Amino acid sequence: MPQTRRQFLQQVGITGGAGVLYSTMGALGLTTAAETPAFAAPARTDLNGRGKKHIVILGAGIAGLTSAYELGKAGYKVTLLEARQRPGGRNWTVRGGTEEKDLHGNTQRAKFSKGQYMNAGPGRIPQHHVTLDYCRELGVAIEPFVNQNADAYLYREGSTSLSNKAIRHRTAKADVYGYVSELLAKATDQGALDSLLTPTDKEALIGFLSSFGAIGNKAAGFGYTGADGRRGYEVEPGAGLEGGRTAAPYGLSDVLASGVGNYFSFEFGWDQAMMMFQPVGGMDRIPYAFERAIGREKFVYGAKVLGLRNTSTGVSVIYSSGGKPREITADYAICALPPHIAATVPSNLPGDIITALQYARPTNAGKIGIEYGRRWWELDHRIYGGITNSNLDLVNMWYPSTGFHGERGTMIGYYNTGANATAYGALSPAARLERAIAQGIKIHGDGYGKDVKASFSVDWAGTEYSRGSWVGWPSQTDGVYARLLEPTGNIYFAGDHLTHTIAWQHGAMVSARATVTALHSKVMSR
Amino acid sequence: MPQTRRQFLQQVGITGGAGVLYSTMGALGLTTAAETPAFAAPARTDLNGRGKKHIVILGAGIAGLTSAYELGKAGYKVTLLEARQRPGGRNWTVRGGTEEKDLHGNTQRAKFSKGQYMNAGPGRIPQHHVTLDYCRELGVAIEPFVNQNADAYLYREGSTSLSNKAIRHRTAKADVYGYVSELLAKATDQGALDSLLTPTDKEALIGFLSSFGAIGNKAAGFGYTGADGRRGYEVEPGAGLEGGRTAAPYGLSDVLASGVGNYFSFEFGWDQAMMMFQPVGGMDRIPYAFERAIGREKFVYGAKVLGLRNTSTGVSVIYSSGGKPREITADYAICALPPHIAATVPSNLPGDIITALQYARPTNAGKIGIEYGRRWWELDHRIYGGITNSNLDLVNMWYPSTGFHGERGTMIGYYNTGANATAYGALSPAARLERAIAQGIKIHGDGYGKDVKASFSVDWAGTEYSRGSWVGWPSQTDGVYARLLEPTGNIYFAGDHLTHTIAWQHGAMVSARATVTALHSKVMSR
Repeated sequence: MPQTRRQFLQQVGITGGAGVLYSTMGALGLTTAAETPAFAAPARTDLNGRGKKHIVILGAGIAGLTSAYELGKAGYKVTLLEARQRPGGRNWTVRGGTEEKDLHGNTQRAKFSKGQYMNAGPGRIPQHHVTLDYCRELGVAIEPFVNQNADAYLYREGSTSLSNKAIRHRTAKADVYGYVSELLAKATDQGALDSLLTPTDKEALIGFLSSFGAIGNKAAGFGYTGADGRRGYEVEPGAGLEGGRTAAPYGLSDVLASGVGNYFSFEFGWDQAMMMFQPVGGMDRIPYAFERAIGREKFVYGAKVLGLRNTSTGVSVIYSSGGKPREITADYAICALPPHIAATVPSNLPGDIITALQYARPTNAGKIGIEYGRRWWELDHRIYGGITNSNLDLVNMWYPSTGFHGERGTMIGYYNTGANATAYGALSPAARLERAIAQGIKIHGDGYGKDVKASFSVDWAGTEYSRGSWVGWPSQTDGVYARLLEPTGNIYFAGDHLTHTIAWQHGAMVSARATVTALHSKVMSR
Repeated sequence: MPQTRRQFLQQVGITGGAGVLYSTMGALGLTTAAETPAFAAPARTDLNGRGKKHIVILGAGIAGLTSAYELGKAGYKVTLLEARQRPGGRNWTVRGGTEEKDLHGNTQRAKFSKGQYMNAGPGRIPQHHVTLDYCRELGVAIEPFVNQNADAYLYREGSTSLSNKAIRHRTAKADVYGYVSELLAKATDQGALDSLLTPTDKEALIGFLSSFGAIGNKAAGFGYTGADGRRGYEVEPGAGLEGGRTAAPYGLSDVLASGVGNYFSFEFGWDQAMMMFQPVGGMDRIPYAFERAIGREKFVYGAKVLGLRNTSTGVSVIYSSGGKPREITADYAICALPPHIAATVPSNLPGDIITALQYARPTNAGKIGIEYGRRWWELDHRIYGGITNSNLDLVNMWYPSTGFHGERGTMIGYYNTGANATAYGALSPAARLERAIAQGIKIHGDGYGKDVKASFSVDWAGTEYSRGSWVGWPSQTDGVYARLLEPTGNIYFAGDHLTHTIAWQHGAMVSARATVTALHSKVMSR
């Protein structure tokens, strides 16, 4: 009896392990790895003789672009309506000359020098995201994005011996892992876990803790001393007789009370674990590559959607162009606007759809890019990329992952969300910079305020056509959200908000793929 | 007269070098900054009126190159004698056309295609190594070297449920950290550590373990279930209602018995923690940049040292050139040959120096570069650089850190040391490849043997002029080793073996700097 491809793959996976599964998938022509959501792109041959259907796409963010690209490849006629003068939506790279007026009334014109930029929106791509597949397919060169760096800092305001100063990730890790290992080895050795561990387990566990925490042996009470160099040196090992000198670790209670360990799990995250990547030259290389592949002539920029209606034969969209309202009709529409903005567009969508769109809860994020005339993080701190995390209101700082050893570099001086982002966003751009510098000096010293050449800040809640960084849902299982997963007449929805990978380009792409698949199935069924 | 902190730091930096600057900054409480060994390069003005001293340098490896470069900058006349036809010593990049006959009698000619290469010797540079400073100074472009990757594999032969198959680093970490957290939280909560922890400590520790191990709360028995996505998914979170499906973790006893956790501490190492870097285009960009900066005319290639003597006025070195012995005299010599090779050079060095040179114990390392016509690790496994570690005799495999999404790529199919390296080295190059493929298939499936376009393997113990990968010392504190740190008459020694950073280019460089400093002091004292 023939079996499905899925059954066959499951069987191979069960008997042969992951390696065999993956290579079998490769042999079967399933080009991407096991975990990436399956997608069978519509084929150009599918539409044979069915006439050229026209799809109007609202919003040329990543979901709109992916939809247009896949539909275009399959032979559909597409038109993209985009309110901005550029593709990408929240995928936005700010360079010298970029000008933006925000909803607070601030107008900024970026003065970054040639080659310098900031990714105001998404900045990183994990290995397993289909975003990388589109980079490959579209010829967008990629390079590593430094999402963790043992030599970047942790900074915690507080009252411990680790507080109020910059601690290297490596130092914090060494001390936390050292004490955790010492404590667990002692408890294990003293029999506290005998109901859970066999003698063999105990021996293996203590062996693991010995290397994991660099702790002493049983005779030494499994003590953590920090003498292993992993936490750093006061005097580095060097030439001749210089074996290096380490400092004593911070005290156990201080290490625990400081909270330095609470950021460690960030780097284990499914979507955050290294390796991570970015396009060479800026994240917007992706939307511009989509634009080229789709065809510039398919885009109507400056087109703000004023109305959306199902009609008896398809859809009608009213949009402004050059200050005047225009109408476009098509067979289908894909609405790839943020849901809270789509909810405000006059339409004949039924009430439960509007309710579902309104169910999305936009949140906020903010970033500032600061160009320095000197790469002081490399020269003075020997930090080559990565993230410094703090409990200050700036939260995260990113050192650039590109241009190593160059003359200049652009840091992300803050990347924060929610109330912290909104507090910065309420300030003028100049005041945001001033506040970011004052806070950053606590971590990096006075040099942080020197050699500043340019800056640009974004407050996503205050950014027209986005009005938020991404959305959350009170529930994705109570049926409200689910209404947006099915077409309403000839109108489909797409966007990262319609996935379980919200706030990632991958989410926008897999949503678009699902929508394209559904729309294509409908066309083919007729 | 009071000065600003900045002025003070600048002054310290100018006179004391980077290392002094950093430790001064640390003392001021600015940072726990990097501790690169101090080095005050001799200045060109120092030698004013003292005549041009001539230094002959034996060996154009990294120590010899650094010595020649720093001395040359200061106005010394330098001559480098190098047995090979290239600079760099063990810093050796193999490209298409590279030909080498080893001491076993094997001759290999690499057939790598254009742009493909393998670094047969050093392959990675940590942020704090002065190697990066020379890259900056010499204009050698750098890019990240992927030293850890959550999606690379761990492979352990054994008899547990994790054994004999490829396990992603992320999966192993999630399970080990999950169980460690569960066990320690239980022991802590049950009071097993009350003699060591205050109630406040206990609360903070359990809070940390909760995020570190992604474990349940007290009501859930602090249980680790693997439901957090960090270990990976059977079905990835996707569009619509697909929230992802995780598999149950491996069992506690199996996780401990498998030994998958015993590699974790590698990434915490002072010299191995990310970020790490490599020169763009091959590690030998460094020696060739040194050669350019020093002046090609200062190099005598194909010059095997046949004799070394202190004389009443300086030194005399006999070397072969074009099959004929030649003599060069100079004021001083720096012997930057491997110590076990220097020990065999006829000389008038005193017996205790020869004894000290013979005290070094060379060890072995081996590598194979395998060029593939298809980047299957990216396409089928979604692995973008990094290291797969195993308990097979190939030990480590490196996916390339460059050329992402390209047509071809060159993996390091094995990087092993000691007996494993010697076992591979004893085979013919063809048999090494065959063995590497057979072992690698266990991890990557049959695809590992497909699309192989070229390979080249190195056995450092069998490589003329190196005869080992690096050396160890029975002791560095018993006085024998220390004899080589002082000059013997007009002969100085340099090399990574004379440091506490053996086997790193950084070691060769800091040793050379120490030797240059000592030699320059002697010249200046006359």
